[in-house]
Amino acid sequence: QMDPESFVFGPYKIDPNEVFYTTGLSYAMVNLRPVLEGVFFVCNECLDTKRRKHVLVCPRRIVKRFVDLSAEETTDLWFTAQKIGNQLETHHKASSLTFTIQDGPQAGQTVPHVHIHVLPRRVDDFENNDDVYDAINLKEMELKKKLDLDKERKDRSIEEMSSEAAEYRKLFI
Amino acid sequence: QMDPESFVFGPYKIDPNEVFYTTGLSYAMVNLRPVLEGVFFVCNECLDTKRRKHVLVCPRRIVKRFVDLSAEETTDLWFTAQKIGNQLETHHKASSLTFTIQDGPQAGQTVPHVHIHVLPRRVDDFENNDDVYDAINLKEMELKKKLDLDKERKDRSIEEMSSEAAEYRKLFI
Repeated sequence: QMDPESFVFGPYKIDPNEVFYTTGLSYAMVNLRPVLEGVFFVCNECLDTKRRKHVLVCPRRIVKRFVDLSAEETTDLWFTAQKIGNQLETHHKASSLTFTIQDGPQAGQTVPHVHIHVLPRRVDDFENNDDVYDAINLKEMELKKKLDLDKERKDRSIEEMSSEAAEYRKLFI
Repeated sequence: QMDPESFVFGPYKIDPNEVFYTTGLSYAMVNLRPVLEGVFFVCNECLDTKRRKHVLVCPRRIVKRFVDLSAEETTDLWFTAQKIGNQLETHHKASSLTFTIQDGPQAGQTVPHVHIHVLPRRVDDFENNDDVYDAINLKEMELKKKLDLDKERKDRSIEEMSSEAAEYRKLFI
């Protein structure tokens, strides 16, 4: 399970090609298909109006609740989110970041594995600032459903995902 | 500024009576008046239907953006939020937690000082799960306005605030 090239997200196996940053205890993945779709976000750089640059940072170990992470995992997870947020904010010419943990089902968590949502934010990226959370929650609900229904997640090609992850990987060399 | 009994939140001085947990680098405060009001939340224990048990965890040092915290501050801030979340979840008979940093103005931050919103969550505490974020953002906007307009914050008495902070302090002995 702590195989450096193996990544799990709750009950799901994550393709290493979707992962763009790792430490011994944490990993960051590009948008899973369900997390991306339908959220309008214009990135000046890639002119991509469909894909929100919304990434997830997770502990490698399957831990459901934030409080159950070890001190080392907690520290490593937030150092990772901090570093990634900073790089993606610059990369996407954003000016703020939203960091959120939905820690438990009553907070909107659908996959029982701690994950930090990291979203670069810009002026007017959502008409109402807090619509971002509707989007996160909607996507979180769709995430589980779609992961369950379609473990292949075919509608984004591995090439496309690898390319996006490769772009992000370069930020952390 | 690092006087152990002095707490600042951006440009505002925080009454030590509102603070219920401190470390060398972080502090946690009970609801500032504007963060509380108008959010419906029933606590079984105190039967208080007006006050959401919404607390803020801040670094003692005035730092605007999350990335600008030192490694020690980042670690201490999240250990503090983790510990407080766990205790308040139990205390309020909740079952989940929402942790959010609005990191920068485009993410909804109004007071330029890093702060983690920690909210115990329960089934049906909001009609729609993500209404919690509307509430956070509304309160965040009101927060600054009311802190600016009314630095005295007279409508909650010091006695009431001290009592709430004292109740929470007992959780961390």
